[in-house]
Amino acid sequence: MDIREVVKKLDSYIPGISEDEIAKEFNLDKNKIIKLGSNESPWGSSKKAIEAIKKNLNQLNRYPETNLEDLKKLIADYSNTKVENVIVGGDGADEIIDILAKTFIEKGDEFIAPIPTYTYYEFSLKPYEAVPIYAKWNLNANSLNLSSILESITNKTKIIFLCSPNNPTGGIIPKKDIVKILKETNALIVVDEAYIEYSDSDNVDLIDKYPNICILRTMSKALGLAGLRIGYGLSNPKIIEFMSRVKPVFSLTRPSYIGALETFKDNKFIEESITKGIESRDYLYNELSKIPKLIVFKSKSNFILVNIEKTGLKAVELSEKLLKKGVIIRDCSSFQGLDEYWIRISIGTLEDDKKFIFILKDVLLD
Amino acid sequence: MDIREVVKKLDSYIPGISEDEIAKEFNLDKNKIIKLGSNESPWGSSKKAIEAIKKNLNQLNRYPETNLEDLKKLIADYSNTKVENVIVGGDGADEIIDILAKTFIEKGDEFIAPIPTYTYYEFSLKPYEAVPIYAKWNLNANSLNLSSILESITNKTKIIFLCSPNNPTGGIIPKKDIVKILKETNALIVVDEAYIEYSDSDNVDLIDKYPNICILRTMSKALGLAGLRIGYGLSNPKIIEFMSRVKPVFSLTRPSYIGALETFKDNKFIEESITKGIESRDYLYNELSKIPKLIVFKSKSNFILVNIEKTGLKAVELSEKLLKKGVIIRDCSSFQGLDEYWIRISIGTLEDDKKFIFILKDVLLD
Repeated sequence: MDIREVVKKLDSYIPGISEDEIAKEFNLDKNKIIKLGSNESPWGSSKKAIEAIKKNLNQLNRYPETNLEDLKKLIADYSNTKVENVIVGGDGADEIIDILAKTFIEKGDEFIAPIPTYTYYEFSLKPYEAVPIYAKWNLNANSLNLSSILESITNKTKIIFLCSPNNPTGGIIPKKDIVKILKETNALIVVDEAYIEYSDSDNVDLIDKYPNICILRTMSKALGLAGLRIGYGLSNPKIIEFMSRVKPVFSLTRPSYIGALETFKDNKFIEESITKGIESRDYLYNELSKIPKLIVFKSKSNFILVNIEKTGLKAVELSEKLLKKGVIIRDCSSFQGLDEYWIRISIGTLEDDKKFIFILKDVLLD
Repeated sequence: MDIREVVKKLDSYIPGISEDEIAKEFNLDKNKIIKLGSNESPWGSSKKAIEAIKKNLNQLNRYPETNLEDLKKLIADYSNTKVENVIVGGDGADEIIDILAKTFIEKGDEFIAPIPTYTYYEFSLKPYEAVPIYAKWNLNANSLNLSSILESITNKTKIIFLCSPNNPTGGIIPKKDIVKILKETNALIVVDEAYIEYSDSDNVDLIDKYPNICILRTMSKALGLAGLRIGYGLSNPKIIEFMSRVKPVFSLTRPSYIGALETFKDNKFIEESITKGIESRDYLYNELSKIPKLIVFKSKSNFILVNIEKTGLKAVELSEKLLKKGVIIRDCSSFQGLDEYWIRISIGTLEDDKKFIFILKDVLLD
């Protein structure tokens, strides 16, 4: 029984630490931990969605719907596009990434990603024996290094991942740069708009104009449903049809389906979630900027990248000091393209933001 | 932008029909439809699981746990094995099948499945360019044709799928046959025990004795959680570790995780679900056997295969006649290895079983 060579070469599986374990190890009250590590929305989910899920729990013994036309219609309306441009994923946008790999990637194909960026592209495509080609994100300007993308394109390039707003830097990629890339290559340009609600421009209009674009979206951020793993892809009907052929049939759970439907109908919830998210981000930016020795990045997303090198602490050290005081942030050392001196702070409620800033100052003065 | 050749050759995507559409088309009350088509458990889910999920809905904005040690421990206890032998899937056992493909399948590798059997193996492995080799299920004896498996093994065989009890026939594969195959080849033997609770023997003991076995299980059948898409795989720690490297990180939703934990603690629910399932199956078998012109298969599962050729009706015709009267059954025409005269009846509540038998007799007398 032969394990594939590519799998043997992948990193060993190291289980994450559960919240219970964190609480136990650091002697914390699990419910009082301030979670600024995973780019979630801290204000919960749509109450209408929760009520609808509750009412449907007596149906959990039944398989989920596979015909998601009503959900696709709501997504299309929300995204200003047509229903035939939509595909839904039951493991968030991560499932759409896997579907893209199944649809496009042959062994030895290349994909381009400007680093630092979302790490799951590489995690997901490696088992398909795709070769990662790292282009560059200009950290100082917090913007895409366009020429590094254009120079990386070869006849083996199958997919180019552009995360906008970019995780973990928070900068956006101007539409004109995306158009330039779309025109330059036959490869599929995947624009990951997971955080688009916190920014002011999207790229959905490009779907009708270019044959080689796919946009990724998620309900895990501004829409407050990270626990339900709902993502979607937007592209032209031809690509959507091919992707549908390899999509897992039942992957969207019943609560996810019901919760997604009701959330898209709850405009007031969505608007408030976005407004409060931007308010929290701006508050954090202003307060972090006042702290000496931190280099704080402007963000169009729901998180803020911070360079802490001048504090003399490594990200792993600062993260642990904060954890001891009940705050989870993201140590960015594992991002390709960043060294060991970067942290990422996600939005919290203003109350949590204030507590965090107080604790951070305290830790840095220590 | 080149779609892979293998994807171009796959069947086009045809959306399923939603329950709402069925209800509308046939002028039915959606809540009164008798669902005997999908091998679900008709008695709902564990009430303890539902209560726990309800209490956790205020956390849906948070990502699910990725450390599933507590769930793996409960699964290990339930399955009489050790925690290091367990991997959990967030899209039912279907996700475990995809993980197996990612771990083992190179382009051109062969997999063997005795037909008719569960169709998802082929759906899942085709995008990996695996070649299906069909061995044989003896319909008359409702048993595996062992020699057809042994004769199909080549040096390209990577996986052999053995579904026991077999979907859609309901027969089991004797342990001695499985052992014979395990000894005969280096390929991975995947024993799909999705319906094991309705039978009287499992194959977990073989994990410690042979290096090349992986058992698939699901919470979608006797455990009453089809809507939450929870599956698991049982194998030796070496295989489990390699599989974990390519497993989607967050695929198990929060409600699925919570629901799984509480269901495994609810022994009374599980026992009752199994007892009632077997009672329903035996009732259906006895009543169906009394109807002239039907050939009814003995089943160790939660469904019954029926040959209807002598009625003069094709499965597609009988299915539609039943649908008009509010009963969903499974037309088996799409199963490789069955012709157009087979239907599969899943267990219902005894009340639904009685209504169904009445309606079926009525339709056949028409």
